[in-house]
Amino acid sequence: MLATDELSVHGILRKFKVRALCTTDDPIDDLRYHAHIAKNPMGTIVLPAFRPDKAMNVHQPEQFNAWVDALEQAANLSIRNLQSLLDALRKRHDFFHQMGSRLSDHGLNAAPPVHGTENEAADIFERARNGQAADASEQQLFAGVLMRFFGRLDAEKGWTKQLHLGARRGNNTRMVARLGPDTGFDSIGDCPQIDALGNFLNALDADNALPRMVLYNLNPADNYAFATMIGNFMDGSIPGKIQFGSGWWFLDQKEAMEWQMNALSNCGLLSRFVGMLTDSRSFMSYPRHEYFRRTLCNLIGNDIEAGLIPNSDALVGPMVRNICFANAKNFLNLPGVE
Amino acid sequence: MLATDELSVHGILRKFKVRALCTTDDPIDDLRYHAHIAKNPMGTIVLPAFRPDKAMNVHQPEQFNAWVDALEQAANLSIRNLQSLLDALRKRHDFFHQMGSRLSDHGLNAAPPVHGTENEAADIFERARNGQAADASEQQLFAGVLMRFFGRLDAEKGWTKQLHLGARRGNNTRMVARLGPDTGFDSIGDCPQIDALGNFLNALDADNALPRMVLYNLNPADNYAFATMIGNFMDGSIPGKIQFGSGWWFLDQKEAMEWQMNALSNCGLLSRFVGMLTDSRSFMSYPRHEYFRRTLCNLIGNDIEAGLIPNSDALVGPMVRNICFANAKNFLNLPGVE
Amino acid sequence: MLATDELSVHGILRKFKVRALCTTDDPIDDLRYHAHIAKNPMGTIVLPAFRPDKAMNVHQPEQFNAWVDALEQAANLSIRNLQSLLDALRKRHDFFHQMGSRLSDHGLNAAPPVHGTENEAADIFERARNGQAADASEQQLFAGVLMRFFGRLDAEKGWTKQLHLGARRGNNTRMVARLGPDTGFDSIGDCPQIDALGNFLNALDADNALPRMVLYNLNPADNYAFATMIGNFMDGSIPGKIQFGSGWWFLDQKEAMEWQMNALSNCGLLSRFVGMLTDSRSFMSYPRHEYFRRTLCNLIGNDIEAGLIPNSDALVGPMVRNICFANAKNFLNLPGVE
Repeated sequence: MLATDELSVHGILRKFKVRALCTTDDPIDDLRYHAHIAKNPMGTIVLPAFRPDKAMNVHQPEQFNAWVDALEQAANLSIRNLQSLLDALRKRHDFFHQMGSRLSDHGLNAAPPVHGTENEAADIFERARNGQAADASEQQLFAGVLMRFFGRLDAEKGWTKQLHLGARRGNNTRMVARLGPDTGFDSIGDCPQIDALGNFLNALDADNALPRMVLYNLNPADNYAFATMIGNFMDGSIPGKIQFGSGWWFLDQKEAMEWQMNALSNCGLLSRFVGMLTDSRSFMSYPRHEYFRRTLCNLIGNDIEAGLIPNSDALVGPMVRNICFANAKNFLNLPGVE
Repeated sequence: MLATDELSVHGILRKFKVRALCTTDDPIDDLRYHAHIAKNPMGTIVLPAFRPDKAMNVHQPEQFNAWVDALEQAANLSIRNLQSLLDALRKRHDFFHQMGSRLSDHGLNAAPPVHGTENEAADIFERARNGQAADASEQQLFAGVLMRFFGRLDAEKGWTKQLHLGARRGNNTRMVARLGPDTGFDSIGDCPQIDALGNFLNALDADNALPRMVLYNLNPADNYAFATMIGNFMDGSIPGKIQFGSGWWFLDQKEAMEWQMNALSNCGLLSRFVGMLTDSRSFMSYPRHEYFRRTLCNLIGNDIEAGLIPNSDALVGPMVRNICFANAKNFLNLPGVE
Repeated sequence: MLATDELSVHGILRKFKVRALCTTDDPIDDLRYHAHIAKNPMGTIVLPAFRPDKAMNVHQPEQFNAWVDALEQAANLSIRNLQSLLDALRKRHDFFHQMGSRLSDHGLNAAPPVHGTENEAADIFERARNGQAADASEQQLFAGVLMRFFGRLDAEKGWTKQLHLGARRGNNTRMVARLGPDTGFDSIGDCPQIDALGNFLNALDADNALPRMVLYNLNPADNYAFATMIGNFMDGSIPGKIQFGSGWWFLDQKEAMEWQMNALSNCGLLSRFVGMLTDSRSFMSYPRHEYFRRTLCNLIGNDIEAGLIPNSDALVGPMVRNICFANAKNFLNLPGVE
């Protein structure tokens, strides 16, 4: 085998024994490549994930309306009001489910407010469709109504919802204007997270619409608050229903991974942790999983050597193996992964 | 001795050599069991502590008025306005003092605001007595006026006031409705603490009404801010007058106890620390004190082994013994504890 | 040599081989002692630094107007409006530059807002000159306009701007009234920092007025947010243009220095770090630099022993030497320091 083959995308997937990967996709995506892979299986299962961030951009009517128009096409459904927007999104969610999706993902700096009603959101939607930009608080209200709806969709189908919280994006206006978003000018924010997060989870729970969730936190100062918040919404339906996600973005290095694992271990149950996530389209990021496993084993090994936990592979070994693979497999329940 | 005797409440108190324990009691409590124990001494001194949280619930007039009615009975005093409420509370504080109480305790998520006047509080009180609920900001104003009054009471009698700050309570509305408060649906909040805390301590100090205090913090992100805040209000009347309290609730485990002790040690004087607290009605929680002592000794032993502090029992030993017992004894000055 | 000589100010400067020290000076200062030292060189280069905090005190018209009057004298320029205030400040900045200053310093609790215009600031200035105090939000607006101007001055001349963020000052009103400011009643605040800081850096960048900067943070909970924020504004003009400053004030001890260095190392480039700062007028504080160097070496040595970084003096040695001296020398570019 040539070195170039070994380091091709498929070579990397084989080398790291990737059982399954999930891409994040816009609801308007036709998922043609997922269909192609499904018909032409490779060693790794490739599934879509539902990322409807653009459905909430009522503050940018031009892009929003172009996106809604594309959604009309994708869903084959005329979108005249909020209700038909939700209908179209549900149709796409159904389609994603058929295509094997079991995950949704949302890139929000903080959990959305939950005080808004569908009527208020319908007004905001109508105005955005007429080209009138929502202001910041209207956009947030609208996002809150949609996020509660997305919660319902995920809960109904047994999906897992992921929130990536705590970033401050586009800090350098000049460079973002030159290079576009997501080009390296984002960093960690320090906005309060917990009231909004608690209210959002509570609203989903009250609606009987709380899916399995993984909450990723970007500011390590909030680790303990996240690690204790998840405990409020464990409902016995599945172990570790609300997960405190692994160290993410700036935090996917030894120091911050250890902080996340210790916070979870001290305030909850490390043994139920579904483990590491990396950006699945970055094929060079798979070693991050190996790095995570070594960091986990080093952490636990140090605790054993310090006499803090039992020096027993029978007790500790299964936990490590579960965190590294089986917990995620059981929790995410991806089609075709056994 | 039967195992059951050894693990009875009295057995546990003996086993852990508990010199004194303080319960937290509502001002309306008649303290009959404390009186009974005082007349029938056991190995452990049992004292009340003053916890007047319900005096501030003007946002829930029904419960509040029932409580004020009970306070009228307990204080044998008609309560027609704010002034007579304060008179009744002072009478109960006097009674608690006679019964050996030297501690008050307040379960506030954050320190109360101090901008309110007694006239404003009197209005809010009157309206609550007429069944009209205070809104959130009125309730806070009212709490601030009462908390300044409670500060005065404690300062006059040389008591120690404890604040337990930083929780977010009742996160899961559905479960709290089913099981009631304090049933496991509370977690760590991330509200700003320091402006309110600084203003509250400053207002007490300005009123010459700042008692000895222990400030317990639930969000470890705030440890350093707490550990430096206490230094602003040491007034030379007693060493370590304002204490940064030990790791509490989610934080009473090795990692977070070490954070609290290191924060205190780096920003203040560890040697003046009054040490561990546990919920005194949870008789199974006494091992937490042993756990604390081992954590303290381990922390200091590691520093000695690393060459960071002197390997001298003459220097370090007394500090450890003081933190584990003598500091609390001298600071709290409980009747009968020598 | 007598012990008293060895511990004289000059003795201490010699003993610690201080190559250069920078004092912080008010723009109205005539820098006569700097001129004297320049004419009578000693082993240590002594330079001024520009600290114009009093230029922003429009909320205290009495002191402010006395200060503006003194600035008129110092700049030999009549100050009738905002524009002439800025002209006078620029003249003083030019003068400081001639006297070797290459640093400015600002003691702000948080970065100032950037929404204000020069016209609004001109109004506030005029009212303050007429004895009318600015309210808190006007004072902040005014500070924002001046700080953007100061950014421009520093950027034009290649100076380094230092922000010291995160304190809460004057916590004990009674003692500050008795002893004055900066007498030991300040501590760590927990106000949000990052939105204001990000907006301020962004506004300077947009104005082409972003100088080299060192951001000192007082609340360790914000370390990671600071350590990632600096990355948004590196523009390739000089390595490490925006610095995350060393542990400062309450944080200049082993634990917090290590936190700062690890945050920088995990989120940025430790190798570009300009290292330690101490209050240069506190001659007894020079051992703090030795303490810093030992803490840095201990941190790196521990990582080497743990196998986390290469055990290679060729790789690690130059980095340590750069952090301890050469980075600061190259970055600050002080006249006469080779």
